[in-house]
Amino acid sequence: MKLLIPFIVLFIVIQVQAQQKTIQEKLGYEKDTKLLIIHADDLGVSHSENAASFKALEKGMVNSASIMVPCPWLLEVAAYAKAHPNADLGLHLTLTSEWKNYKWGPVNRQVESLVTKEGYFTDGSVNLGSEAKIEDVERELRSQIEQAIRVGIQPTHFDSHMGMLFQSPELIQLYINLGREYKVPVLLNNRMSLPPLTDKDVLVDQVYIASPSDYKKSMTSFYTGVLKSIQPGLNEIIIHTAYDEAEMQAVTIGHPDYGSAWRQADYNFFTSEACKKIIVEQKIQLITWKEIRDKLLR
Amino acid sequence: MKLLIPFIVLFIVIQVQAQQKTIQEKLGYEKDTKLLIIHADDLGVSHSENAASFKALEKGMVNSASIMVPCPWLLEVAAYAKAHPNADLGLHLTLTSEWKNYKWGPVNRQVESLVTKEGYFTDGSVNLGSEAKIEDVERELRSQIEQAIRVGIQPTHFDSHMGMLFQSPELIQLYINLGREYKVPVLLNNRMSLPPLTDKDVLVDQVYIASPSDYKKSMTSFYTGVLKSIQPGLNEIIIHTAYDEAEMQAVTIGHPDYGSAWRQADYNFFTSEACKKIIVEQKIQLITWKEIRDKLLR
Repeated sequence: MKLLIPFIVLFIVIQVQAQQKTIQEKLGYEKDTKLLIIHADDLGVSHSENAASFKALEKGMVNSASIMVPCPWLLEVAAYAKAHPNADLGLHLTLTSEWKNYKWGPVNRQVESLVTKEGYFTDGSVNLGSEAKIEDVERELRSQIEQAIRVGIQPTHFDSHMGMLFQSPELIQLYINLGREYKVPVLLNNRMSLPPLTDKDVLVDQVYIASPSDYKKSMTSFYTGVLKSIQPGLNEIIIHTAYDEAEMQAVTIGHPDYGSAWRQADYNFFTSEACKKIIVEQKIQLITWKEIRDKLLR
Repeated sequence: MKLLIPFIVLFIVIQVQAQQKTIQEKLGYEKDTKLLIIHADDLGVSHSENAASFKALEKGMVNSASIMVPCPWLLEVAAYAKAHPNADLGLHLTLTSEWKNYKWGPVNRQVESLVTKEGYFTDGSVNLGSEAKIEDVERELRSQIEQAIRVGIQPTHFDSHMGMLFQSPELIQLYINLGREYKVPVLLNNRMSLPPLTDKDVLVDQVYIASPSDYKKSMTSFYTGVLKSIQPGLNEIIIHTAYDEAEMQAVTIGHPDYGSAWRQADYNFFTSEACKKIIVEQKIQLITWKEIRDKLLR
């Protein structure tokens, strides 16, 4: 018994130290490292979104993206993924079809509580936490994940299109469970009402996304401000890269927020020399979800 | 009995005369009238196809079009139909998803024999006459028709995308029956193996469509030749109007036949002054499926 106590104390100390390790330390970086994921959402939604995002991933500072599996242009992303096996492509788990004249529906064919009478997803004005059957959500999300794998995509992470999966504790739990099951990190942040997490779950310290008022003022000054204020820890900037041209203008018609000009502004900033320069000056360390997945979950 | 015979003879004569009436006469035109429908297929497939076709319908010589209901851009066509209640819009009944990186699936969720393992329609290389269950085809076509009506489209006619419904007598019969049930004409031509028709069924005397070799030579000379050779009777030229721009280039990637440059060539000819001039010179009478439907079937 005398011998046992020091062991127990040692074990507790190690545990506490492990818990106190920052995410950057767990990933093998110094404690003061400013880790940043620059993440393009909505791949697959349109050709314009794909083309601009592929270019931003290759030529720009964007280093991560996620895919809307139910959308018509999925196979264009699948072809890109096959040609770029190291690209950091996750799944932007999708339960909405939010544009006016351009629509898609679920991958799974038996998810009645998720669709309108036309068979499309709802536009996101419905609270899925109360309106959708959790079994339908689970069935659909599993179908999206399996569909992505079927067409040759190995997801590096999951996140949630329009944050629909953050609408209830039940939905968040399902989302976390799917990440654990498929051994990929899911985008989580302390501002969400999270269930108890394990040491394996990854928390992003700060998530940045432009608001309509940021867009109205100036995207360049918003993103410059964000990059200059990044703190040590794991950070993510969420953007949407597409071209402000005929297709994307028609997709986003009547909706300037997150519309085609907005997406062009995102593209412009994150492929600019100015952006690159600030990232170097600010000693920001870019990191991908793939690195996080492979170091912490596999 | 003596009295009855003249009546019977008279009845037979009237019947034979009725049967011998040409389609142009049934529609109230002179026997030597060259009736022509200039018809744009594939509305709904992309924004580019929609935008170019709407413009060709309004400013050009195109006077009829048909819609691919399962495609993502259906609601853009529905909005156009509501704003243009006299537009001649039929349904281009669709059982294929033929492009490489851009996909759609059925409206009906229980038509397993029509879809790939990804849930998309096949690319059209499968013979649906032997591979598809006729119940699945019927279920899907009924869903497409009801979907169109649900979103505010009153179809003026039906035709068949990529001719998939002409692959077996059973499929043709289903197609004809749906036309009869919804009281709309369906595109039929004597070159198809047709079942016995009634006096209510409408036959198009000549259907013209450019082939890859016509496209390679010159679309202008092909369509000029067609317009100059049009004979009295009911004729239809089938075209595909879209813009040769980023979206449509990506939709039709790897497939020059019926590709984006082809569709731009169709658009260019049928919105040209030259086309208009030949139609006037050749005394061609343009007619819509709507006029045929309303005069003969309603």
